[in-house]
Amino acid sequence: MKPVVGIVMGSDSDLPVMAKAAEFLDSIGVEYELTVISAHRTPDRFLEYMRSAKERGLKVIIGGAGGAAHLPGMAAALTPLPVIGVPIETKALGGVDSLYSIVQMPSGIPVATVAINGAANAAILAAKILAIGDEGLTGKLEDYAKSLAEKVEAKAEKIEKIKYKAYLEQM
Amino acid sequence: MKPVVGIVMGSDSDLPVMAKAAEFLDSIGVEYELTVISAHRTPDRFLEYMRSAKERGLKVIIGGAGGAAHLPGMAAALTPLPVIGVPIETKALGGVDSLYSIVQMPSGIPVATVAINGAANAAILAAKILAIGDEGLTGKLEDYAKSLAEKVEAKAEKIEKIKYKAYLEQM
Amino acid sequence: MKPVVGIVMGSDSDLPVMAKAAEFLDSIGVEYELTVISAHRTPDRFLEYMRSAKERGLKVIIGGAGGAAHLPGMAAALTPLPVIGVPIETKALGGVDSLYSIVQMPSGIPVATVAINGAANAAILAAKILAIGDEGLTGKLEDYAKSLAEKVEAKAEKIEKIKYKAYLEQM
Amino acid sequence: MKPVVGIVMGSDSDLPVMAKAAEFLDSIGVEYELTVISAHRTPDRFLEYMRSAKERGLKVIIGGAGGAAHLPGMAAALTPLPVIGVPIETKALGGVDSLYSIVQMPSGIPVATVAINGAANAAILAAKILAIGDEGLTGKLEDYAKSLAEKVEAKAEKIEKIKYKAYLEQM
Amino acid sequence: MKPVVGIVMGSDSDLPVMAKAAEFLDSIGVEYELTVISAHRTPDRFLEYMRSAKERGLKVIIGGAGGAAHLPGMAAALTPLPVIGVPIETKALGGVDSLYSIVQMPSGIPVATVAINGAANAAILAAKILAIGDEGLTGKLEDYAKSLAEKVEAKAEKIEKIKYKAYLEQM
Amino acid sequence: MKPVVGIVMGSDSDLPVMAKAAEFLDSIGVEYELTVISAHRTPDRFLEYMRSAKERGLKVIIGGAGGAAHLPGMAAALTPLPVIGVPIETKALGGVDSLYSIVQMPSGIPVATVAINGAANAAILAAKILAIGDEGLTGKLEDYAKSLAEKVEAKAEKIEKIKYKAYLEQM
Amino acid sequence: MKPVVGIVMGSDSDLPVMAKAAEFLDSIGVEYELTVISAHRTPDRFLEYMRSAKERGLKVIIGGAGGAAHLPGMAAALTPLPVIGVPIETKALGGVDSLYSIVQMPSGIPVATVAINGAANAAILAAKILAIGDEGLTGKLEDYAKSLAEKVEAKAEKIEKIKYKAYLEQM
Amino acid sequence: MKPVVGIVMGSDSDLPVMAKAAEFLDSIGVEYELTVISAHRTPDRFLEYMRSAKERGLKVIIGGAGGAAHLPGMAAALTPLPVIGVPIETKALGGVDSLYSIVQMPSGIPVATVAINGAANAAILAAKILAIGDEGLTGKLEDYAKSLAEKVEAKAEKIEKIKYKAYLEQM
Repeated sequence: MKPVVGIVMGSDSDLPVMAKAAEFLDSIGVEYELTVISAHRTPDRFLEYMRSAKERGLKVIIGGAGGAAHLPGMAAALTPLPVIGVPIETKALGGVDSLYSIVQMPSGIPVATVAINGAANAAILAAKILAIGDEGLTGKLEDYAKSLAEKVEAKAEKIEKIKYKAYLEQM
Repeated sequence: MKPVVGIVMGSDSDLPVMAKAAEFLDSIGVEYELTVISAHRTPDRFLEYMRSAKERGLKVIIGGAGGAAHLPGMAAALTPLPVIGVPIETKALGGVDSLYSIVQMPSGIPVATVAINGAANAAILAAKILAIGDEGLTGKLEDYAKSLAEKVEAKAEKIEKIKYKAYLEQM
Repeated sequence: MKPVVGIVMGSDSDLPVMAKAAEFLDSIGVEYELTVISAHRTPDRFLEYMRSAKERGLKVIIGGAGGAAHLPGMAAALTPLPVIGVPIETKALGGVDSLYSIVQMPSGIPVATVAINGAANAAILAAKILAIGDEGLTGKLEDYAKSLAEKVEAKAEKIEKIKYKAYLEQM
Repeated sequence: MKPVVGIVMGSDSDLPVMAKAAEFLDSIGVEYELTVISAHRTPDRFLEYMRSAKERGLKVIIGGAGGAAHLPGMAAALTPLPVIGVPIETKALGGVDSLYSIVQMPSGIPVATVAINGAANAAILAAKILAIGDEGLTGKLEDYAKSLAEKVEAKAEKIEKIKYKAYLEQM
Repeated sequence: MKPVVGIVMGSDSDLPVMAKAAEFLDSIGVEYELTVISAHRTPDRFLEYMRSAKERGLKVIIGGAGGAAHLPGMAAALTPLPVIGVPIETKALGGVDSLYSIVQMPSGIPVATVAINGAANAAILAAKILAIGDEGLTGKLEDYAKSLAEKVEAKAEKIEKIKYKAYLEQM
Repeated sequence: MKPVVGIVMGSDSDLPVMAKAAEFLDSIGVEYELTVISAHRTPDRFLEYMRSAKERGLKVIIGGAGGAAHLPGMAAALTPLPVIGVPIETKALGGVDSLYSIVQMPSGIPVATVAINGAANAAILAAKILAIGDEGLTGKLEDYAKSLAEKVEAKAEKIEKIKYKAYLEQM
Repeated sequence: MKPVVGIVMGSDSDLPVMAKAAEFLDSIGVEYELTVISAHRTPDRFLEYMRSAKERGLKVIIGGAGGAAHLPGMAAALTPLPVIGVPIETKALGGVDSLYSIVQMPSGIPVATVAINGAANAAILAAKILAIGDEGLTGKLEDYAKSLAEKVEAKAEKIEKIKYKAYLEQM
Repeated sequence: MKPVVGIVMGSDSDLPVMAKAAEFLDSIGVEYELTVISAHRTPDRFLEYMRSAKERGLKVIIGGAGGAAHLPGMAAALTPLPVIGVPIETKALGGVDSLYSIVQMPSGIPVATVAINGAANAAILAAKILAIGDEGLTGKLEDYAKSLAEKVEAKAEKIEKIKYKAYLEQM
């Protein structure tokens, strides 16, 4: 099957964060492609990638970038597809620079921004978008939500049973 | 036709901002419903709204909120639909409180956050999401993008012709 | 005896911080219950917990949460009990996101917010609230305040006697 | 009846904000006293006020202050009563200075901090604290919460009926 | 003579600020062109502008942009010319979003960032750059610096003579 | 008598703020000189002023500056006298830029920093410094402190008597 | 000789920072006393210390505190002596909370604030204050300034001679 | 050949960051001089350095500084050469203090500011400035840009080939 999500990042140093997006899509069987592509360092390749994204069958773009993080916004300027932006944490400013550079887009060119380092959430958001009118995928997302709830409930049960001191020791 | 986008806000004081979302959807013919509903003040009605959103035919939720802005995140916890959050500018902190309260969601529950007061962009993002696989809507978005470009180009032409001083006087 | 304080947190990763609240209540003999419960991941259980809190005999809720920290505010929306919020420190933003998400509540739904990671203070505040009209508990709090003062005084005495260099070496 | 809440502020310039606390307590019939008292400019009177607060019958202190806002924290150091702090908005920094000065208290001396300029919420929180074990006051708070919900619902009904454009014109 | 400085901005709403750059260049006789061009709304025209800038004889680019301000950084990615970025003040965040989006560029693609709304300084910096090896322009900049000093000195003389109260009344 | 305090500012636009320093010194009879002098625009005059300050009989320097506020720090580098810095509020960043530029001095070169726009406090601090070993000046400062206390007490008395509603109407 | 500087801190955890103040005063032979004293935990002892400071012969107070750092401001409210405040770095907020709590004092009660963790600078500032009219101390401060300059010059000479790569290896 | 770029920093503790500027200039054969020089600690030597910079043949100054970072701005006040400022990361505030102190210069005295710790970018910017009208240097910068692109492309190729999991393991 052809990929429907494009996961891109400006530098391979963002991969440890962005891999969480790929892992989630793997877990629910959504096809994706993942690459390194820089709006600043490889502008032509970037342009071509974004301009052709829809034609190549992609439906959602996930872009991660840090600092003066222009990748998601420039992607949104070049493709009609919805673009999800992941602000990458930065050493000096904690990622507030990445966040502002991604979320504060001018009117007309939205980027769907998630939390700093929130690559897993970017993938879940992509899946929620793709699940509109796709009951199979909706079901998988419901199963995922249920599994989240169950994990919390299991922890609650355990902590109520063994009390916090024992729980802390087992963490 | 039944509404496919639900625009909700915690207080009618958010309406002057959130109306921009409705205006954009009006302009491209996407059906929506718009109401005031508070996660804090009307939690039961809120729960019912979000739990029934998908069954009632909605496909995307747009939620605006300011300060400790819990509405979009709680919506995302209650509906499988993608939720777009609009941080409303606040008097004391400029809206950075709203932004952090909306964008910094924990893993598992994403909110697609747009700029502070970015309600128009929230609607454009909703349209981009709905346009996946809807060539008619895609066409309308491309027309909109073209109109944005043309406006910039007309301004450029004018400023290059009459020069900045005359242009400033006519603003 | 039945618990009068409910200590809740959205994730067991908050436990190392929130355990300080339990430890303080243990130290002055206030009964509490402690569990993991998520407004986002287990909304139904959360609703039920908060809606029944007063009936079950709780008098104060202490809620810890980080990032887009909606737990304390949603608790305050669902129970008539006073709710104390503990903003948990976050890696990227240091907890200013948690703080704003908890403290900047809209009019009508207050959360009694303490310092970032201030779980011990949350418990002391809960005890101060419970001590209104309870001279036994007031006495214990006065003993605690006295012990704080004595610790400072002992340190002062030591540092004045052995001077700062020796004191530093013994730290 | 003797006052049970003490509302204090460091300067009468804080009164337009702090009056909201008094108004709420008036509305639900909780007796209070309100005065101007400065930890910095009238330290002796401040000390005496806080030291005698409990003996004089007060049960909760609400303190508003701006900038390097020491009043609530110093109050909490001097009285066993729970102290609620209201950070007052400041011109240069928006009140983030007031907020940090009030909420970031060291371990042992909590201040129950509400939103910047959140004086009404401070009073509601005081009432929630006083309502523990006071079913009459609890009932009044439930009525208040109901009135908040009804206002939201009335607005929702109106906006759904006349639509947002007409609603905006009537604002 | 052909323009050697290109002054560009993403929106004509930035013109009142950016006009200060043109005014300074006018005052020292440096030729420039000024236009509105958006990296987001007119990406093709933007690409062409930046790619051809050097060939058309430009030597320095001055770019003003606000919010998620990608214009200067994308310019720097597309032209070998030095790019000076002017962060435009924004209503919600004061321009700290613009500043971070412009200054925090990744290694390899610098933008010479000036103060928020510092368009005059951008032009002075451009002139300083052009003045390397151009003694005529250097002389004009020295005259300008002298005029700045003389203005300060005249004010100093006046305030020392008539004293601050009279001076304040004449402001 | 010769001036003992030098009040300097980088621009006459700072005068409305800095005049408060002069007013306080006038009120307690401390001689001062006040002028406009820029570390950036008139570096030679600045150097000469600071280098000769002690010889000319000055004992304390008060420097006000905004933005990248280098004046107080450069003064402290050039004179052995204690230098008090007043961060001037700025339009875009509220003065946090001025504050950081003044207070975050490297080891070896302290600046005694007061609040944003805190020119009156700068003068009071200068007077406290001069009052060491000058009982006459100490007495005046004690009178001033007493007058502050009395003003607060008068306000307290009034607000307690006429209640907050009447007081608000008379503000 | 009797101490003329009082170095106080709210907690012995501040000692590793505050010891730098003592070290500097040791190095230039200024007598000081150093102790732990908390405005919050030992308010009576604090009051007595500050009220008696001048009578006991102290001339300057140096106060270090972190978080909601009320110590220096409360000291300034209680003693006519000049008070120097050292904001201590905090884990969650980096010390911006400490800085705001110390520097943003209301009109009438200045605190001479130095950099975050700037205890050495606090001591140098105290010495500069004490050196007014004390040529011996002035001479020592000039020697210190000279030694700072010589250290920089020695480093400059070395780096210019052995070049940066060798210099880096020897760091 | 005589140096055309002067790299200066206030302290040798900035060298590990600033060395990146030297490394880049080494790599493209631009002559530079590098030294430690402090506007605060060695003001005379600083003045002489900046005043003579142009005469000695320098064409661009790169200045690195942290905290209340006055070096680049004071350099810009003293030399007609363009000055590039590198804000050095600081422990407490992450370098936002350095950034504001460098970038927020008053009108008339620009500093070309790069990212926090962006010393390599400062050197690239210096080279871009020097490359105006120097086709040899322009060619080297184009080669450098090409090498950046090729590195990204090689990473892209590898990650697309071996997939993200294997890539992560090899990082």
